[in-house]
Amino acid sequence: MVDRRRMVRNYTDAPVDPAIVDRLLANALHAPSAGFSQGWAFLLLDTRDDVKRFWKSTEANEGLPDSWLSGMHRAPVIVVPLSCKQVYLDRYADPDKGWTDKDETRWPVPYWDIDTGMAALLILQTATDEGLGACFFGVPREKWDAFRAEFGIPEQYTPIGAITIGHRAPDKPSPSLKRGRKPVAEVVHRSHWRSSPG
Amino acid sequence: MVDRRRMVRNYTDAPVDPAIVDRLLANALHAPSAGFSQGWAFLLLDTRDDVKRFWKSTEANEGLPDSWLSGMHRAPVIVVPLSCKQVYLDRYADPDKGWTDKDETRWPVPYWDIDTGMAALLILQTATDEGLGACFFGVPREKWDAFRAEFGIPEQYTPIGAITIGHRAPDKPSPSLKRGRKPVAEVVHRSHWRSSPG
Repeated sequence: MVDRRRMVRNYTDAPVDPAIVDRLLANALHAPSAGFSQGWAFLLLDTRDDVKRFWKSTEANEGLPDSWLSGMHRAPVIVVPLSCKQVYLDRYADPDKGWTDKDETRWPVPYWDIDTGMAALLILQTATDEGLGACFFGVPREKWDAFRAEFGIPEQYTPIGAITIGHRAPDKPSPSLKRGRKPVAEVVHRSHWRSSPG
Repeated sequence: MVDRRRMVRNYTDAPVDPAIVDRLLANALHAPSAGFSQGWAFLLLDTRDDVKRFWKSTEANEGLPDSWLSGMHRAPVIVVPLSCKQVYLDRYADPDKGWTDKDETRWPVPYWDIDTGMAALLILQTATDEGLGACFFGVPREKWDAFRAEFGIPEQYTPIGAITIGHRAPDKPSPSLKRGRKPVAEVVHRSHWRSSPG
């Protein structure tokens, strides 16, 4: 399944079974999270009108070719995974963690974004399992205000990206893939950095 | 499978089949990444000595109960997923992306950490599939220098956490789980924030 999943950027007009959408979201909630904080939320857009409002508010289309746009715009469902740092800061101020100062610099990496990204991957994987296509892409920071205003999203919640979901139509693989997957020998370091790759 | 995966904090002394370790790492490389940047690396520690050096250099044990420590220390394999922002900045300076200023503020969220986190989840999932236990946990920022020195890790690479891998022994579920999983109705917002949860 890991091998089959890839970003799908073109969709048919066919609607997605709501029961599948439920499964996508239910599985997302099984992502791990630091201290079981679960500092995430998911905006589900599953009507033509809501999907249109998403594209209009985020205008994630600048500089993209029309073929990309029309294919992506046909996706009948969009899920926006949102991360919330404050939930993590609050969770780790609990007695069993003890970071009562809620100081963000205590955090080595932004687990709110990482955990929510894991939830996003579970959505992508579940879509693949269900025979659907999905694509995870970024929401430009300069569009966050318009996006939040359109859907009533609180300031504390950050869209770490958005996921289109639908039935696959033929599409061209991303040109980025021409770069090739890095081989194990290049990215895995055993025992010591580059001392015995692979 | 999504339901079965959970963090395992106690292991037997049994070694892990190297072929399984290969699969864990091969699957990790199938994580998605922005622009197919693949700005990640994985430090594999699979000898008693290397694993000991990891624990000694990171001392991730402060304030943790002995039962946690002894169980975690028995894990025969540790994989440290590392993210590299610079690879992403360089990738997006390519002609097809055009962010030639390599300005980090262009990035809405740290996809280097998010993508590497997705790779970490693929390792956790593969371990579960193989009948093994695994646990993803943070490496304190104040230990990064010692950790990098011990294993020759370049400054540009950030340990987003570490993953213990081994054969499961009985363990107590994390006290964090008592918080309970947040229900779909709480974290999923349809069409508009909290206007019609679930």
